[in-house]
Amino acid sequence: MTEPLMVELWRGPHVESRHVVHAVVADVEGNVTRCWGDPDRLTHPRSAVKPLQALPLVETGAADAFDLGPVQLALACASHNGEPGHVAAVDAWLTRIGCTADDLECGVEQAHRDVDPGATAARNNCSGKHAGFLTVARHLGVDTAGYIQPGHPVQELVRAALAETTRTALDPAEAGIDGCGIPVHPMPLHAIATAAAGFGTPTEWPPARVDAARRLAAAMVAEPWFVAGTGRLCTDLLAAADGEVLVKTGAEGVQLAVVPRLGLGIAIKAEDGSRPASEVALGHVLAEVEGTDRTEVFDPRRRITNHVGTHVADLRVAPT
Amino acid sequence: MTEPLMVELWRGPHVESRHVVHAVVADVEGNVTRCWGDPDRLTHPRSAVKPLQALPLVETGAADAFDLGPVQLALACASHNGEPGHVAAVDAWLTRIGCTADDLECGVEQAHRDVDPGATAARNNCSGKHAGFLTVARHLGVDTAGYIQPGHPVQELVRAALAETTRTALDPAEAGIDGCGIPVHPMPLHAIATAAAGFGTPTEWPPARVDAARRLAAAMVAEPWFVAGTGRLCTDLLAAADGEVLVKTGAEGVQLAVVPRLGLGIAIKAEDGSRPASEVALGHVLAEVEGTDRTEVFDPRRRITNHVGTHVADLRVAPT
Repeated sequence: MTEPLMVELWRGPHVESRHVVHAVVADVEGNVTRCWGDPDRLTHPRSAVKPLQALPLVETGAADAFDLGPVQLALACASHNGEPGHVAAVDAWLTRIGCTADDLECGVEQAHRDVDPGATAARNNCSGKHAGFLTVARHLGVDTAGYIQPGHPVQELVRAALAETTRTALDPAEAGIDGCGIPVHPMPLHAIATAAAGFGTPTEWPPARVDAARRLAAAMVAEPWFVAGTGRLCTDLLAAADGEVLVKTGAEGVQLAVVPRLGLGIAIKAEDGSRPASEVALGHVLAEVEGTDRTEVFDPRRRITNHVGTHVADLRVAPT
Repeated sequence: MTEPLMVELWRGPHVESRHVVHAVVADVEGNVTRCWGDPDRLTHPRSAVKPLQALPLVETGAADAFDLGPVQLALACASHNGEPGHVAAVDAWLTRIGCTADDLECGVEQAHRDVDPGATAARNNCSGKHAGFLTVARHLGVDTAGYIQPGHPVQELVRAALAETTRTALDPAEAGIDGCGIPVHPMPLHAIATAAAGFGTPTEWPPARVDAARRLAAAMVAEPWFVAGTGRLCTDLLAAADGEVLVKTGAEGVQLAVVPRLGLGIAIKAEDGSRPASEVALGHVLAEVEGTDRTEVFDPRRRITNHVGTHVADLRVAPT
């Protein structure tokens, strides 16, 4: 095992907090080309693998059957802010498939309910992914109720897509439950990087999956705001990179990124679950892999200001 | 150095994230009676030392001059939620000293502005502390403008109180800037525990400081909601413990706690800055020190449910 990245929070002349971060770069065949920390670290990928969980939506023909475009496909891969535009788009999509927000089984975050006691599950950051699950259920002609459960046909398809793209046997007995209610399968960090590489350069994948990945990736690039929202790294990086990099964040400090032209995938996990640390680590790894520093995207995340705009701290990868 | 506490996030049958947490228990003379991790860890105490930063408010006679009661003294020690009751109390206090929210130099959190673009600095979690600073400035008859700056008479008093109670030389050149704009001095973790012990059992302190600490502690116990707010650990623990434990949290995973009847102070720092990990660690340390497990306060913080109320994860101190 190589040394992990150490992301340090500097306040004045001293380090205030430290984050251990694992990162793996791999190709579609599973070859690890760069690594910091433990490539085998068992990692719950959380929402970072939403683009992979959305593959069945396109592969099954459900997306075409309901005439979904880039906005819906981007939302299917999204952890969005629940801004009015996100909610309206999900509600319109649900109407198209004959469903409502009541059919979503993801609930809604307490933070949204605090602001708006009438907030529906369409505001949940995962509502696009769940609208995608409902669309698949409709297309398959199966009961939509219980679509988040491990035994439901939709989740079986999702698990198969994850197992095949990560090249990992996913044992239901090892799974946990994600924030939105679906199963979450822990897997080695390198397996997430391998699947990420495939998503951008799916040379090893079956033709229907190649097509699905290309359409989902193109949707994320075309509609980055629908992947996350105002002020979010995924949106900012997708917009700035214009297809050179794909990125999707997950809870507890997970990042999945793709550099299609190099055929490489990146998976990052902050040992302590810190999202800011995982973002700064991603900037470091991308600079190493791409050879360019996307400062316009990452500098604002490294520089911390307080409530009156004074620069008070910096989040930096420690030199090794 | 002894082993630090390891706080683990379990999701299903596997650990998802891990947090290293340092904890020190000390008495007012600076004797360390228990320790996990590095007692010398240089720690930015952040808001955990607000009760110490409030000492000059009482010691100078400013609190009496403006007839402050338990609500104001609790607010002076608070990191509050900015709920309507907090804001109204701070606004009324500012009126009493001939100031307004415009005199507060702490700014207001972006999260509050997102919900209410008209939110004033009275909604800032630190507004009670800052109202206290303004009260001291008024009482001293000095300019209120710039009261957050290191050279201002109010900050000189605050720094002296911190240096004396922590028994630490605080070099302004080593200080950083806190989220609310005032200086924050890094200090060994044991020094924070020592000052915490003094706050509850100030046998070594000068008489005016003893009186100030007793009044501030009594105010925190009498008005716990004004110390933090709905759903917050400080409020819940202060209310449940009814004077047996005092507690104040700080940003980046700092906790200060006092067990007055034992003459002991506790200081906790999560290496990675995680507040949830620091809270669970505090529950563990308090159980060791007090010999009783305050399960009604800490169980809800150890048990994590998702947006539909399903129990999905647990935050636990790993057995050693």
